[in-house]
Order: sequence, then structure tokens, then C-alpha cells
Amino acid sequence: MTTTTRTIPVNRDVQAHRKQQAAEQRDAFTRRGTFVVNLVSSPGAGKTSLLEATARYWGNSRRMAVLVGDLATERDAERLRPYVPVEQLTTGGACHLELSLIQQGLQRLPNDDYEFLFIENIGNLVCPASHDLAEHLRVALLSTTEGDDKPGKYPKMFRTSQAIVVSKTDLLPHVPFSVDAAVADARQIQPDLAAFSVCASTGEGIADWCRYLDHERERLFGSHMAEQKVDRT
Amino acid sequence: MTTTTRTIPVNRDVQAHRKQQAAEQRDAFTRRGTFVVNLVSSPGAGKTSLLEATARYWGNSRRMAVLVGDLATERDAERLRPYVPVEQLTTGGACHLELSLIQQGLQRLPNDDYEFLFIENIGNLVCPASHDLAEHLRVALLSTTEGDDKPGKYPKMFRTSQAIVVSKTDLLPHVPFSVDAAVADARQIQPDLAAFSVCASTGEGIADWCRYLDHERERLFGSHMAEQKVDRT
Repeated sequence: MTTTTRTIPVNRDVQAHRKQQAAEQRDAFTRRGTFVVNLVSSPGAGKTSLLEATARYWGNSRRMAVLVGDLATERDAERLRPYVPVEQLTTGGACHLELSLIQQGLQRLPNDDYEFLFIENIGNLVCPASHDLAEHLRVALLSTTEGDDKPGKYPKMFRTSQAIVVSKTDLLPHVPFSVDAAVADARQIQPDLAAFSVCASTGEGIADWCRYLDHERERLFGSHMAEQKVDRT
Repeated sequence: MTTTTRTIPVNRDVQAHRKQQAAEQRDAFTRRGTFVVNLVSSPGAGKTSLLEATARYWGNSRRMAVLVGDLATERDAERLRPYVPVEQLTTGGACHLELSLIQQGLQRLPNDDYEFLFIENIGNLVCPASHDLAEHLRVALLSTTEGDDKPGKYPKMFRTSQAIVVSKTDLLPHVPFSVDAAVADARQIQPDLAAFSVCASTGEGIADWCRYLDHERERLFGSHMAEQKVDRT
């Protein structure tokens, strides 16, 4: 049997196509006034708990919805359903969410005029870093129980994020973890990272986190509306 | 422009080839009396700490070595170096270890007659489940801070493992986690899972864990030697 080797140059085209699709979807979100946040972390770092705390803090004062990804089960959607409109995205084993799944989830949400759409990614500190889900803001959670040496060991996740949220601060007295060291390690990779510390169960730090979200949304729509104005003249 | 679609049927051959390579490497390990354990978990679940505790417990009574995988940095190898021969495998961003990296690491270890070789995989509860590293035993760690709902949400990792180790039991008083619930959830997926609870920092559960490793190694080499005997008649 003869074996031939051929190079099939598809990768660059696929990436360019995906990048364009994400940009178009992000524009669509922006046009309808929806600020999209992609939450990424290890399994069990507290993404769902942070969203529960955010929804409790805001009550009905913000229109928010959640798309929550998992390999299997509806467990996270069930936790969030008492608070906000939520759709579970089940990847059937895949290690990250992709834009097509987000777009399917959007179709199933009851409305399309949310002020905030949160995407809770698969618990995985590696693969989701490589997938643009049309978000405006990517936030990496790191729990105090994971060790403050993690940013340097998983650099792409922190390099592609705009904020780090250190979660489970109530456990700080019991674990060898320095918030300052973790944030400094992450900022070695991405100097502009915003940094927050929260405890979802006690509510510590949630007000600051929510203020940051409001501020980032205002920043986007301030400039977006200015751009629209310019376009119209 | 005309677009044509072609199906390129390489996937099955690649998988069969990888499976065969892993089987051959596993046979090589078995022939030289090395029992290979692949430790998998989320980032920060305590794989390195478990290996430190195992090495401290055994002292010089077992010949053991470690291959430790990370996307970047030598941090884990540095922690283990005081105790055992260790080689860091750096994937440069990839989300799991592959057999070729293991084989490169083996070349760099000072000896080739270890009784136990531990592979500390990338912290990732998804992708390493799909990669056979020629191990005899796959062990999934789950820390008490990750939540006892994780096995059902990351089923392949638990389906392809032979044991679950619940780590960080010292934090049980401070977190909503039931060891029984986590083990029951995992055994819904894989009924034959052996289960252990450990605290690496206090040493709780380490003796049981080490006894299990000895027992599994004896079981393999008992049956391996029996098979060799049969082959020779």
C-alpha cells in the first residue's frame, strides 16, 4: 500500500470565518443594547454561584438572562431558574462552548432585549480561551482553593480576559492562597486585568462586581451611541 | 466560486493507531515492572499535593517517579523535586498530555526500573479523558471545594477512571459537599469505581490510598506473571 501525505490548508480560512461570525454576532448584540459577559473558570470555581448572587443583588432592576454550558445534565440551569431566564446548552462531551450553540440558545430565550446576557462556559481553564462567543467582556474566575499559582500555569485564559474574579474568599483563612499573589501573577500576563474578590454565599464583593458590570456596559453603549451619532451625520 | 465538500476518512485510522501505540507502551511498562498511574482532575484539585504526600509516606520504600504536565511553567516539577525523580512536560498551551510527550519524558528520567510511575495530567476535567497515556490505572481527583455535583457534569472522566479520590477533606466543615453524594454520583456513571478521601496536608487517608496502589500493582503483576507462565508452557 502506498501512503501519500497531503497538506490541507483549511485552518486559516476556518479561523477567519469564525472570527467574522463572532464579530457580526457581537455587533447584533450591541445594536440591541445587550452587554454580553463570558464567564470562564475551572469546574467548581463558582460561576453559577456568582450569577445567583448577581441576580439576587440586582433583583428586577436589570434585565438579565443566562446561557449556561455543560457537557451533560441541566443542573446549573435548574439552580439559576428561580432568578432569571436561563437556557442550558449541553455540549454532549465537548470541552468548550461554540458560537453556534450560543445562537441556538438565544432562539430559545423568551426575549431579545436583555441589558446583560451572561454566558457560563464549560468548566475548563484551557479550551474556552480559544473560542470567541461574541462577548463584550471575558471574565476569568479563580477560586481561593485552586492555588494562587494558577494564572501562570494557564496563561491564555488570563491573557484573553479583561477581568479576574477571585471567588470563595470565605475560605481564605483555611487555604494557602494570597489574593495579591494571584492577581500579580495574572497581571504578569495581562497588565490591564480588572480584579475583584467575592464570596457569593455571604455577598462580600458582589456590590463592587455589579458596579463594574454597569460601568463596562455604560462605557460600551456610551461609545456605541456616539459612533451611531457620527454615522448619521 | 464553486465550493466542493469532501469527507476525509482519517479519524478512525488515527484512533486505531493511537490505541495500538498506547497498548504497546503499556506492555513495555508491564514488562519492566512499572505500574503507571494517570492522575486527572480540575486545576488545583491537589494532584501535586497528593503526589507529595504519597512520596513522603513511602519514603525510600518504593521506587517511584513522576512526569508532570502543564501548559506552561515548571512550578509543579519544582514542588516534587525534593522527593522524587520528576520531569516537567510542558504542552505549550495544549489541553491534555499525549503519549508522545510521555515517551519523551521517559527518556529524560534517570532510570527505567521504577515500581510506580505517576503521570500528573493537565488540570482539565474534560480533554484528558480521551487520551490513553499507556497507564494501568486512571484516577480522578475531585476536591471538596468543587461541589459534589461534578461527576454527572463531567461524565467521561469518571467513566474512564478506575478510582475517585476526594481531596481537601480538611475543608469539609466549611463547604457544602457530601463525600457520599459525590461518590454515589460518580458510581452512577462507573459502578466499579474505588473511592478514597484524603487530606494531603494532614496525611488523612494517605495510608489507605497507598495500600490501594500497592494492591493494584500486585494484582497486575500477579496476573501478568501468571499470563507469562501460561505463555511459556
